[in-house]
Amino acid sequence: METFFTFLARRVDDCSSLLCVGLDPHPSELPKPTAQAALDFCVRLIKATSHYAVAFKPNAAFFESYGPDGWLALKEVIEAVQAESNRLGSMIPVILDAKRGDIASTAEAYARSAFEKLGAHAITLNPYLGKDSIDPFLAYKEKGVFLLCKTSNPGAADFQDMLVSPVGADRDPPVPLYEHVARLAQEWNSGNNLGLVVGATQPESLERVRTVAPDLWFLVPGVGAQGGDLETALRLGLRKDGKGLLLNISRGISRAEDPALAAAEFRDQCLTIRGGMGLKK
Amino acid sequence: METFFTFLARRVDDCSSLLCVGLDPHPSELPKPTAQAALDFCVRLIKATSHYAVAFKPNAAFFESYGPDGWLALKEVIEAVQAESNRLGSMIPVILDAKRGDIASTAEAYARSAFEKLGAHAITLNPYLGKDSIDPFLAYKEKGVFLLCKTSNPGAADFQDMLVSPVGADRDPPVPLYEHVARLAQEWNSGNNLGLVVGATQPESLERVRTVAPDLWFLVPGVGAQGGDLETALRLGLRKDGKGLLLNISRGISRAEDPALAAAEFRDQCLTIRGGMGLKK
Repeated sequence: METFFTFLARRVDDCSSLLCVGLDPHPSELPKPTAQAALDFCVRLIKATSHYAVAFKPNAAFFESYGPDGWLALKEVIEAVQAESNRLGSMIPVILDAKRGDIASTAEAYARSAFEKLGAHAITLNPYLGKDSIDPFLAYKEKGVFLLCKTSNPGAADFQDMLVSPVGADRDPPVPLYEHVARLAQEWNSGNNLGLVVGATQPESLERVRTVAPDLWFLVPGVGAQGGDLETALRLGLRKDGKGLLLNISRGISRAEDPALAAAEFRDQCLTIRGGMGLKK
Repeated sequence: METFFTFLARRVDDCSSLLCVGLDPHPSELPKPTAQAALDFCVRLIKATSHYAVAFKPNAAFFESYGPDGWLALKEVIEAVQAESNRLGSMIPVILDAKRGDIASTAEAYARSAFEKLGAHAITLNPYLGKDSIDPFLAYKEKGVFLLCKTSNPGAADFQDMLVSPVGADRDPPVPLYEHVARLAQEWNSGNNLGLVVGATQPESLERVRTVAPDLWFLVPGVGAQGGDLETALRLGLRKDGKGLLLNISRGISRAEDPALAAAEFRDQCLTIRGGMGLKK
């Protein structure tokens, strides 16, 4: 059995890219607010960028908001990635951006939904309910989980930046909550199927998280439209082996005049920066 | 315009109850794992318990796991509560247990899904992404939000119990993260449409949260099957006005030999305890 991160690493090599294309069919980007328009938007984006995308990340919210038709469209989007993979001869993983989090028996149902019903290869999860809310997803040994650690929105500061003292560990200096999430994720990754979501908008956070979670894959939003700097993200976010980083771009690609060109340019920018860091192109 | 909590308080008076019936059509409770069986399970439970239920709380996960058919069933469940309300002549609110949490533009889509597409009256949300992830829901002035504060699962301890020091507030003693969530929720409730989820399994947590959030409604899971004591939950969780508390029971009702009887008995137990506390029956 191949783990998700082995699959992901192979795809990184196949396309020499670090780009994850976010599929966020926001109604404002569609000619009309329907599930069919959302599907068409995503399929166009998938076909335009598949040469340069390590992975695609559909966000469940934008499908859910169209009800049953939206869930059907979401499944079709994931199938479209599969079809495009077959065409290219290189499997492209789909990360379902769902940010779920619930008690174990409920989490099992969410895991079935994402991995069995929809066929996603990985999912984003919220850590607030703790390890037993994540285990039902980690139980799918060949699937991947990206746990929210430090998000790229302003409100991230409300809780994620708070200094915490692990209970019973008075001697260690307090660390930001997001760093504690990262420490635990590094511990919990016994199956090599747990990664983190770490925004690029606060470079010092990315650096702290890489220090305490040296082995984990990071899914990094916030480069581009949200203001995160690409070179800084690569310098601070890549693992020592030059891997472990996936940079998500949504609007920066979907709103570009030519999404294929925008994706190709982003891929090339990453290659140039990696080259400058002495990493293989 | 009536706020959700005014609506909820009226229903509490109408049925003299504090019971929220959780609609969790876990596959193990169904004759077969289909959306139709999930719908049938919920409709039976709604009809059996509507006299004693202040509110119904369907959990999105158990519908989502059946894909498009599941989302259709979820909408039909919410419509079934509406039909039962019309029959009784007393509107029964529906709280969608979804535990969503995403950046603002995505949160808007989740809010449309819950409030406009499905017609739920309130939703449960995860606080990890901070205030800007909650605002799009609070913008629906007549709808309600229950923010996860202290959940009833064992993993709640992993992050929710951690002692935090609000940044820049060195002089205050550290408080558990869940208590800080409660403090902020009390501050953020300017529209009287924000409540909290606080489990009954840890009475001292319920007490701390009531102290710092004296005005908020609590949705309390964990009484019954999970081991929380009912009298303790009422004593520590009720507001000074004898309201502000909704006790969720799922398996304790759905797995009872006679769910109607179980719901009636639970209602009566609450009334007796409230009477003993000097509160009106």
